Amino acid sequence: MADAPAHEPPKPPPTLPEADVAALREAGLAWSQAPGRPRPGADVAPDLDVTETRGRPGGHYVRVVRPQTQGFETVAPGWLEATPRATQPTTDMGRFRRRLRTVILGQPLSSSRVLHERLNKVRALPVLSSDALSSVAYATEQIVLVLAVAGATAVSTDLLPIMGVIAALIIIVCLSYRQTIKAYPQGGGSYIVAKDNLGPVAGLVAGSALMTDYILTVAVSVASGYDQIQSVFPAAANYRVLACIAVIVLIAVANLRGLRQAGNIFAAPTYLFIFAIILTVVVNLFRLITGSIHPTGTSINIPITESFTDLGGMLLVLLFLKAFSSGCSALTGIEAISDGILAFKVPEWRNARTTLTIMGTLCVIMFCGITIGTEVLGVSIRNSADPCYQSVILQQAAHAFTSPLQCVKGHAVFAGATGLGEGLFIFVGVATTAVLLLAANTSFSDFPRLFFFLARDEYAPHQFRRLGDRLAYSNGIIMLALFSCLLIFIFQGDVSRLIPLYAIGVFLAFTLSQAGMVVRWLKRREKGWHHGLPLNAVGMTMTFIVFLVTAISKLPESLIIVIIVPSAVSLFLAIHRHYVDAKGQQTTEVPTEPGKIHPVCIVPVDQLNNVAFQSMAMARSLSEQVIAVHVCFDPDHMALLRARWDAWGNHVPLVIVESPFRSVLRPLLHYIDAIDKQITDGTLVVVLPELVATRWWHQLLHNQFPLRVKAALLFRPGTVVVSVPYHLQHHRHKEADEAL
Amino acid sequence: MADAPAHEPPKPPPTLPEADVAALREAGLAWSQAPGRPRPGADVAPDLDVTETRGRPGGHYVRVVRPQTQGFETVAPGWLEATPRATQPTTDMGRFRRRLRTVILGQPLSSSRVLHERLNKVRALPVLSSDALSSVAYATEQIVLVLAVAGATAVSTDLLPIMGVIAALIIIVCLSYRQTIKAYPQGGGSYIVAKDNLGPVAGLVAGSALMTDYILTVAVSVASGYDQIQSVFPAAANYRVLACIAVIVLIAVANLRGLRQAGNIFAAPTYLFIFAIILTVVVNLFRLITGSIHPTGTSINIPITESFTDLGGMLLVLLFLKAFSSGCSALTGIEAISDGILAFKVPEWRNARTTLTIMGTLCVIMFCGITIGTEVLGVSIRNSADPCYQSVILQQAAHAFTSPLQCVKGHAVFAGATGLGEGLFIFVGVATTAVLLLAANTSFSDFPRLFFFLARDEYAPHQFRRLGDRLAYSNGIIMLALFSCLLIFIFQGDVSRLIPLYAIGVFLAFTLSQAGMVVRWLKRREKGWHHGLPLNAVGMTMTFIVFLVTAISKLPESLIIVIIVPSAVSLFLAIHRHYVDAKGQQTTEVPTEPGKIHPVCIVPVDQLNNVAFQSMAMARSLSEQVIAVHVCFDPDHMALLRARWDAWGNHVPLVIVESPFRSVLRPLLHYIDAIDKQITDGTLVVVLPELVATRWWHQLLHNQFPLRVKAALLFRPGTVVVSVPYHLQHHRHKEADEAL
Repeated sequence: MADAPAHEPPKPPPTLPEADVAALREAGLAWSQAPGRPRPGADVAPDLDVTETRGRPGGHYVRVVRPQTQGFETVAPGWLEATPRATQPTTDMGRFRRRLRTVILGQPLSSSRVLHERLNKVRALPVLSSDALSSVAYATEQIVLVLAVAGATAVSTDLLPIMGVIAALIIIVCLSYRQTIKAYPQGGGSYIVAKDNLGPVAGLVAGSALMTDYILTVAVSVASGYDQIQSVFPAAANYRVLACIAVIVLIAVANLRGLRQAGNIFAAPTYLFIFAIILTVVVNLFRLITGSIHPTGTSINIPITESFTDLGGMLLVLLFLKAFSSGCSALTGIEAISDGILAFKVPEWRNARTTLTIMGTLCVIMFCGITIGTEVLGVSIRNSADPCYQSVILQQAAHAFTSPLQCVKGHAVFAGATGLGEGLFIFVGVATTAVLLLAANTSFSDFPRLFFFLARDEYAPHQFRRLGDRLAYSNGIIMLALFSCLLIFIFQGDVSRLIPLYAIGVFLAFTLSQAGMVVRWLKRREKGWHHGLPLNAVGMTMTFIVFLVTAISKLPESLIIVIIVPSAVSLFLAIHRHYVDAKGQQTTEVPTEPGKIHPVCIVPVDQLNNVAFQSMAMARSLSEQVIAVHVCFDPDHMALLRARWDAWGNHVPLVIVESPFRSVLRPLLHYIDAIDKQITDGTLVVVLPELVATRWWHQLLHNQFPLRVKAALLFRPGTVVVSVPYHLQHHRHKEADEAL
Repeated sequence: MADAPAHEPPKPPPTLPEADVAALREAGLAWSQAPGRPRPGADVAPDLDVTETRGRPGGHYVRVVRPQTQGFETVAPGWLEATPRATQPTTDMGRFRRRLRTVILGQPLSSSRVLHERLNKVRALPVLSSDALSSVAYATEQIVLVLAVAGATAVSTDLLPIMGVIAALIIIVCLSYRQTIKAYPQGGGSYIVAKDNLGPVAGLVAGSALMTDYILTVAVSVASGYDQIQSVFPAAANYRVLACIAVIVLIAVANLRGLRQAGNIFAAPTYLFIFAIILTVVVNLFRLITGSIHPTGTSINIPITESFTDLGGMLLVLLFLKAFSSGCSALTGIEAISDGILAFKVPEWRNARTTLTIMGTLCVIMFCGITIGTEVLGVSIRNSADPCYQSVILQQAAHAFTSPLQCVKGHAVFAGATGLGEGLFIFVGVATTAVLLLAANTSFSDFPRLFFFLARDEYAPHQFRRLGDRLAYSNGIIMLALFSCLLIFIFQGDVSRLIPLYAIGVFLAFTLSQAGMVVRWLKRREKGWHHGLPLNAVGMTMTFIVFLVTAISKLPESLIIVIIVPSAVSLFLAIHRHYVDAKGQQTTEVPTEPGKIHPVCIVPVDQLNNVAFQSMAMARSLSEQVIAVHVCFDPDHMALLRARWDAWGNHVPLVIVESPFRSVLRPLLHYIDAIDKQITDGTLVVVLPELVATRWWHQLLHNQFPLRVKAALLFRPGTVVVSVPYHLQHHRHKEADEAL
């Protein structure tokens, strides 16, 4: 839309459809027959740059006005370009707001500066996989937490089967998406693939599901990032909610400023995180083999609701499924690469596939490494509100580089760390936090892009299509920030309380996307379908099963998502219906040809003063048929007005409506209705005075009546409203007012 | 203003000043010379009731329209009266709001139903003195509380001197006000007396001081009423703030409904209260003499900050002064009678004086009776948050009719009450609560009346002059309710925390009112000045001293009042300056004669569709000089629009403004500025399309651009804005939408 750079050589004018041209010609014919009116006053030059004539006693002089000095440059006749000067605010308030905006968001950028940078694999990997890889930071911890709630003994022995299934899932989903990337080399987000192959409703379901997950990604990543910080600085526990919201606001502002993901700075955290996790796993392995560390066993320091032995068989199964579902948060973010294929260098789809494979492999290695480490070395399980809380990742790092967490009298004690060891421990924490923030940041590109697509297809309000000052889709960014802050606030920034909502949407989107691919293979039978169809079918089946498992095992929290998705879909559909309806159904009650407009003017008046004269003069210049109406409940005022009207000469008929119930607006509206009923082929025009106050509080001191009339007439079809301004001048007491 | 009943025989038309008539005649001359325009379309009858012609093929037919059926009745030519039907809302939302309003406030009342009931002394006394008499319910308690905070021993021995001074003050103030009543038989509130004799600033100071005290009267009376309820039902302690706010809202709604104070029901509580207090005092006296009760001594059950022996001499004096200041709350409300003289039957001033004397006497008797009872019998002093709390009044009643309060394990135990005794005890509680609520209700007449006077003199916004649906000054009532609820909320409905703010305003108003009288006597030397002057001078001096004592001894809380009063006065003065300035300084930038208006129209267009045709047709019917302007950042759209414009035939010049920074509003405003600079004697008219959506959320889905342009042009002097409506029709999916 606005992607084309400005100043490129103008394209040849578009060819219009024959029917359009005929309709427009016919409309033009009616206009050319409309009676012309004499041109009063001096000529006005629409192009600004011709001449300006000024009246002088005894003649005129002509001055050439250079449009540049007015903030415009002439491109061609009838075509001006607004320079930055033309976007300057003119009021003090406007200037202040602009300055504030510039400080926060930076100078507005020209449309010609939209970037289309392409990434090689080395830079694409960190940018597009931060979400998927960062999930490792909380996935294992969430599995352990669910198991721990049910009793201590079982924790360490049951991690491995769950880990195995999740690792297998990652591989299957990656293999499936390799097919999608090839089929949609222009970018195959779940919304697009589902909409293309399964129809718009399926697309919207996938879109809504992804929408919920983008919001949760921000909330979970920021909260988990804070877990890492708190693991290193236990005192941070008290500022969780406020700090998380502040971080989200900062990320949002950075994105509103038009933060580009492509910068090298975005590559660093992901690589450092990969390095940190692999180093931790390898060092632990080495120290275990050499016998320099020993498993500490798992200790549980949270209230336990039920023990394993008390659980029935069915409940036990459900518990394992819930632990598995929580671990499935490791899969979030895998779809990012298929969404962003166009960011790769040519050949895009091949580079994207390779990157996806690398990412999947890394994801499996890191997740398994951390989980096995947890299984073998044992962890101390605490609530994140506990001052002794340490995240599972940093407990692993503590094993590797310092010594396991000691909790003395409810406060964390770090003991036995050498300088290098402590440094490495902090490094793991910082890298993990950084990659989590990067993951949150990724949602701030994905969510507005999803809403851009939805708005382009008219499922979301058009406002989401608009590029902001800094070429970012501001409305999407603001909406994402608001919703994720709300989640942080409701769930107090606690990852374990956010997780039950998470990943459900992703698996729904995965399922629909794979289903779309299956349908596509079956329909098109393109080259390679024998190979691709089974892969996508397996992927679809597996992700659908996981979706069901997740939705059921996470009850009742998962109900929230189950309610939000259909609500969002119906909202999107309602919006779409409205836009479709609106197209071409804009009904005009005022004639569209100048010759057919016969205005009948009603002028509500309060007193016979200059304000009334001005409004009536405007009305009379529009039409011979002008009625002044005064609604009143004070007999003295009525008599005075009538007397003054007579003295003036009754140039406009005055109707006084006496309102014994002191309501002014409704009798006026009923009077307007009564007059409107009498009009057969005229247009009803209401002329209202509009006060222009120099100070906002002066406005409050005056009658808000014209404003209320205007608001009421806004919804009256076929009523033209003319606002004639008057203003109050303050000279005498200006200084005194300022001093107040 | 609106007090005159409707339908009275019309007065002779007012005679206008010669200069006015000349000016209006001159204006009329210019209008009669303005070029007429042909009358298009059918005639319209401004009076509604003449005839209606409708076009038919082959002729017209004429139908007589009866205005009654349209909600209007003809009074005279050019004079209609709106029937209740003309005040009916026409939209669903409007009807819903009207229904809600009717349920809460009742049916609107006609202006002709303003009541001017006069009261005899027997009914005037309870109505006008409830505020003053009800102060007895808390004045003694507040003295005791202040003394108790400083140590137990001193309490009982030091009540009598304070009581004596306050009783003397009541007598002096009453004597002073007897003079005021005679001098101002039309009603002499402090604002009026001070303004008349000392100038407007003194009047405003008195007005602001009274304003603070009216608000505090509501808060203190309602909170003290709750103290009484809690004394009978200790469990009520938990709902204090909510219950107090609910009561204020109820009183406010009752007053918005146009509650008339004159009803007999208002007489009952005051007389019952007088009877209850005197009965309590007499029974206690009798039982003391017969020896059937014995003093229990004063016990203090609140944390004590310092004991008398630790206090230095100066501090001790300050403490006594503070106790005295708190007791001075007994004087609030004495000014009510001089405010409401016109409510009395003729001879008003004489009846009012007699009533004032009776009230003063009752006030002194009741206050002294309760205070002596407290001194002799002893009280148990507790915080009102304590479940064993009992108000001093009800402790007296308990002595008289049951047995003194017992507090077992922190809960009140009422023991030894016979059926009749308990009944009488509850009767005292109910009567006290009722009179306190009546006192709060009195402020709901006084405060809006004060603001009516302030608004009439243009010191307060005109909105306070407006009579609501039920003939009450709604805005004053709502403002009082808001402020008093705020006070209850801030001070948690605790009388002892509200008292430090109280009475300061009253004594300031007393002082200014008496000072006004002194000046008046000295200026006029009317009959009786030898007698009146000394009385008012003593009153002025005494109340001024008490004002100083109150303000100093209640530091730091009294600072709040000391800050509020001057702030309010400057605000009133600023408002006055604005209104004075505004008068006759309404500057019109549009000519006031129709012949001089030469409009130049600018029509912002988005696409060349019917909406644009309609706006341009309206513009063309106004002026030959029409410029269509399109601000855009999409080159494709620009080219398409240009092509369509050419196909149409360029009947209106189109200027395309390209905006590389995607800002649309500012370049448009700058373009309008540039055109405006070229206009020498024309009027700039901007014609904007206005979307009329059938559902409010549809409005949100569409471009808010015209709205933003309109808001920006609102503050552009001399720019006429024409809103041409179009709307969206929804037929197809109506049912589906409803189901959403």
